[in-house]
Amino acid sequence: MANKNHQNKNVNLNGWMNKFKRIEEKTKKLALLSRLGQILNSTLDHKDVRRRAMEAATQLMEAEAGSLLLFDEEKNQLYFEVALGDQEEAIRKIPLNIGEGIAGWVAQKGEPLIVNTPEKDTRFFKGVDDRTEFKTRNIICVPVKVKEKTIGVLEAINKKKGEEFNEEDLSLLTSLADQVAIALDNARLYQELEEMFFQTAESLADAIEKRDPYTGGHTQRVTKYSLTTARYLKKKPVEMKWLKISAVLHDIGKIGIDDQILRKPDRLDPEEYNAIKQHADMGAEIIDHIKQLKNIIPGVKYHHEQLDGTGYPEGLKGEKIPIIAKIVAVADTYDAMTTDRPYRRGLSKELAIKELRRCSGTQFDQEVFEAFAKAYEKGEI
Amino acid sequence: MANKNHQNKNVNLNGWMNKFKRIEEKTKKLALLSRLGQILNSTLDHKDVRRRAMEAATQLMEAEAGSLLLFDEEKNQLYFEVALGDQEEAIRKIPLNIGEGIAGWVAQKGEPLIVNTPEKDTRFFKGVDDRTEFKTRNIICVPVKVKEKTIGVLEAINKKKGEEFNEEDLSLLTSLADQVAIALDNARLYQELEEMFFQTAESLADAIEKRDPYTGGHTQRVTKYSLTTARYLKKKPVEMKWLKISAVLHDIGKIGIDDQILRKPDRLDPEEYNAIKQHADMGAEIIDHIKQLKNIIPGVKYHHEQLDGTGYPEGLKGEKIPIIAKIVAVADTYDAMTTDRPYRRGLSKELAIKELRRCSGTQFDQEVFEAFAKAYEKGEI
Repeated sequence: MANKNHQNKNVNLNGWMNKFKRIEEKTKKLALLSRLGQILNSTLDHKDVRRRAMEAATQLMEAEAGSLLLFDEEKNQLYFEVALGDQEEAIRKIPLNIGEGIAGWVAQKGEPLIVNTPEKDTRFFKGVDDRTEFKTRNIICVPVKVKEKTIGVLEAINKKKGEEFNEEDLSLLTSLADQVAIALDNARLYQELEEMFFQTAESLADAIEKRDPYTGGHTQRVTKYSLTTARYLKKKPVEMKWLKISAVLHDIGKIGIDDQILRKPDRLDPEEYNAIKQHADMGAEIIDHIKQLKNIIPGVKYHHEQLDGTGYPEGLKGEKIPIIAKIVAVADTYDAMTTDRPYRRGLSKELAIKELRRCSGTQFDQEVFEAFAKAYEKGEI
Repeated sequence: MANKNHQNKNVNLNGWMNKFKRIEEKTKKLALLSRLGQILNSTLDHKDVRRRAMEAATQLMEAEAGSLLLFDEEKNQLYFEVALGDQEEAIRKIPLNIGEGIAGWVAQKGEPLIVNTPEKDTRFFKGVDDRTEFKTRNIICVPVKVKEKTIGVLEAINKKKGEEFNEEDLSLLTSLADQVAIALDNARLYQELEEMFFQTAESLADAIEKRDPYTGGHTQRVTKYSLTTARYLKKKPVEMKWLKISAVLHDIGKIGIDDQILRKPDRLDPEEYNAIKQHADMGAEIIDHIKQLKNIIPGVKYHHEQLDGTGYPEGLKGEKIPIIAKIVAVADTYDAMTTDRPYRRGLSKELAIKELRRCSGTQFDQEVFEAFAKAYEKGEI
């Protein structure tokens, strides 16, 4: 009797220990889920969120690979990026028709799915394996939903140590998908707002430009040339951002110039030229009221300064001229030279580059010109 | 011997069961932490994040109250909002000098703190209890850090069931604070971008307005009047947002009007008046290129339409005129009437309201006018 009791206790103890191990494992996974949620939400860059979501799915599921597929409503397709776990380098874009494959099924039904024997599952789409040269052994796949609407699918492929995916995994991956949905939605909102800002600035610059019938598309070209030059100067993303806004708004001060002067088909007399020169200061004054745009003022105010101090509005010399202004200056002058005016034809690209080279070191910054010339040689300008 | 073994097993079993209960508790808390993180990140509204952070701290710590204090660098103060758990209504703003109180200490040192006997702790600041009529029994307080920089402090006050805060609580609250930091930072970035957008739109509207020397401050006033009217019409936040942008940009089309006409000190002749009328369509054309601003086109394009169909550009009648345009129309006309022109003095407020009333039902929407008049009577216009 005592012996039997003893055995029961042993059984109980083993039961408790197993239960304990499982729950301890779950605790670790929940702590990991919490950390992954933090990492996901630490960026408002949509591409970063997507990459982190795939990495998180791979890590949380202890899988060989993770992938995130997003729904493209226009094309009625899922497009996805595959992160092959440790072999991170192989991230590829492959479109998938809705309903096609495991992911297509999950996207269509809005329900999660575990497939531990893909070769026996008619929903499995071998095409992806063929193209990625990846052998899918088993797969776990959950919908990514924003306010009840499926916007995509999160997957993990091939559980490590030869195991199969289970219900516990499904619950964890579903929680992760909820966090992915939130992070993606925040990034989307931020990106849309940023686009709204840029498009508004560009549209207003366009409208101002239209008052001057001889400069159609000038702002857009100056912006493109400036950004291309900056890439060759290896500028950081944040510098590129300020440069872009600065280039878009560089002539914003023309809002305050009389349209008789702006539209004059002949060469300007000295007084009219002096009036035109005001646009640099006027632009800076407009921007000065916008707290968050402090960083673009140098580009707007000083894009007509020259290295030797003969420019305007302040006659700044050499290193006193901010780099952002030096970049816009080259782009602006190149565009002015290569476009037609009522009183002269535009120069050819070759002649314009030649002229910029002649004036670099006196009017233009040498290094900026070299970057511009390199971009030109590569056919990017 | 057998008996002793048996006892050992019992002891072990109890030990395992306790350990199991603790870890089971922790698992629940981690799952809760994960959910709270989702809730925190599901908004980009700074105020919402703050409120959710306090509620999350209260819930996670099983406390009577939670509070979030944020650092104001200019004033070198912490300001905080107290959420008194179930007695939610009592959210108050109280400033706290840096270094002052438990929270001030945590903010200054950047280290977490548990105080289970506040009455014996010299750092404890009774002033807050006095002002909130709240009795602090114990307190747990952790720094909120963005990229190693302390931006605030998250607290929970009075553990329920008469318990004290422990190290496990500290670890959980620290994780929550990390999530709060991320959510606050995202909301701040979004808010800054939104401000940049509004300020840029306002500055450009101002600059365009400056070409017309008789309308200083017009845009700002029309925006203010429109929003005030909309509040009395009980418009939703999202409608208010579109109305605001629409009011700011309602005259954007004037960018394309000759400055001789804009600046003419005398009354316009019919041909000039026809040219001025173009600004409604021109404004809509500019905005038409901005995908995210589709919703403001009605306000920009139709703010000169009249109920009886005698307005421009399309001569729309009654219900065909969008509500956003009807609101801007009343605000715009009131401001035009009450400001001086070179050829006439502006009307008094009373006379202008009288004139609007006379024309409501034919020129202006009755309901919109009533809302405007109510705001005027309350001294808000």
